[in-house]
Amino acid sequence: MMAAFIIANGAASMGSEVTLFFTFWGLNLLRKHQAVSVKKSLVEKMFGMMMPRGPAKTVLSKMHMGGMGTTMMRWVMKKKNVLSLDTLMAEARKNKIRFVACTMSMDIMGIKKEELIEGIEFGGVAYYLNEADGAGYNLFI
Amino acid sequence: MMAAFIIANGAASMGSEVTLFFTFWGLNLLRKHQAVSVKKSLVEKMFGMMMPRGPAKTVLSKMHMGGMGTTMMRWVMKKKNVLSLDTLMAEARKNKIRFVACTMSMDIMGIKKEELIEGIEFGGVAYYLNEADGAGYNLFI
Amino acid sequence: MMAAFIIANGAASMGSEVTLFFTFWGLNLLRKHQAVSVKKSLVEKMFGMMMPRGPAKTVLSKMHMGGMGTTMMRWVMKKKNVLSLDTLMAEARKNKIRFVACTMSMDIMGIKKEELIEGIEFGGVAYYLNEADGAGYNLFI
Repeated sequence: MMAAFIIANGAASMGSEVTLFFTFWGLNLLRKHQAVSVKKSLVEKMFGMMMPRGPAKTVLSKMHMGGMGTTMMRWVMKKKNVLSLDTLMAEARKNKIRFVACTMSMDIMGIKKEELIEGIEFGGVAYYLNEADGAGYNLFI
Repeated sequence: MMAAFIIANGAASMGSEVTLFFTFWGLNLLRKHQAVSVKKSLVEKMFGMMMPRGPAKTVLSKMHMGGMGTTMMRWVMKKKNVLSLDTLMAEARKNKIRFVACTMSMDIMGIKKEELIEGIEFGGVAYYLNEADGAGYNLFI
Repeated sequence: MMAAFIIANGAASMGSEVTLFFTFWGLNLLRKHQAVSVKKSLVEKMFGMMMPRGPAKTVLSKMHMGGMGTTMMRWVMKKKNVLSLDTLMAEARKNKIRFVACTMSMDIMGIKKEELIEGIEFGGVAYYLNEADGAGYNLFI
């Protein structure tokens, strides 16, 4: 996710139009920090509890090692004043990068619109394909 | 894998020609459900036993958590009538999407043609690069 | 990483110009086998010890299983004379593929230029985006 935001912010600041399309686990990044009360089935509730809500709860997965990797990396990034996922997201919004939540993934994972942050758009696979068709390039991260 | 099939089916139904090139672990998706008796070395046999055969045995990896994630996700997808990997594959074939097995990966992993499902093609990296060169776009998933 | 090198070498031998841009954990592949004495903070040292140095120490991650997967796969590749990561890298260099280390990742992970192999270039996200803009295609692996 960090790579996605760093590339997106770089491209935006170099004058490109950028759209980020969030599918599956990527959706978790768009969840509000607070739990939102919506009607859900039991399994949807379990899913909701098992998954991280927003960037602060997201683990830096490949170096996770029982939490130590994430903590270390956040610590290093802070020390070095490199941008955290939170600030990368904020920067992306300032850069007018469009955030699109994949509606099929929302449906599968039982995530409702009210649970996601404000100011985002919603689209399915056809939306994504149309964007990709018109784009200079297109990465799957 | 689900993302790959969803994007591929979407593109095909919007009129694009789609080729899916299966390398390394992706090959497991093309294996027949039943074990096929072929001549193999001991290590090739071990590899064969350790790896899943076909979509029904494939775990939904990032939410695996000792099997619970996979079961939950299959259950949710069923409840919601969202397509499973099995049906996504069937739909892809109906959409005339070409399935190409990477011959170098087959060689490394000791997978023989007889072990893979019918109606697929075989090609190496040169094949993939030629396809990618002619393509509108090209994702590595 | 193997997939990246196999595709890159294939493209180079078919006459394309290829640049490999190494970010985050990909940087480990460019580390010298020997520890290099450089000034580091405690956390940078810990990071350095936790991460593999160079291709020989890199695990074949998705089939790792406590080391068995990696050993098996190396063994099979050797038996079959398929190229190892070491030789894939050597071939890439012979093919004049450019290796570029991501300077932002180096900064985050506390990796110094002296710790990386000779003959590589250094660049940030703007460098990557410029390369990608001019490229026929561009994969994120």
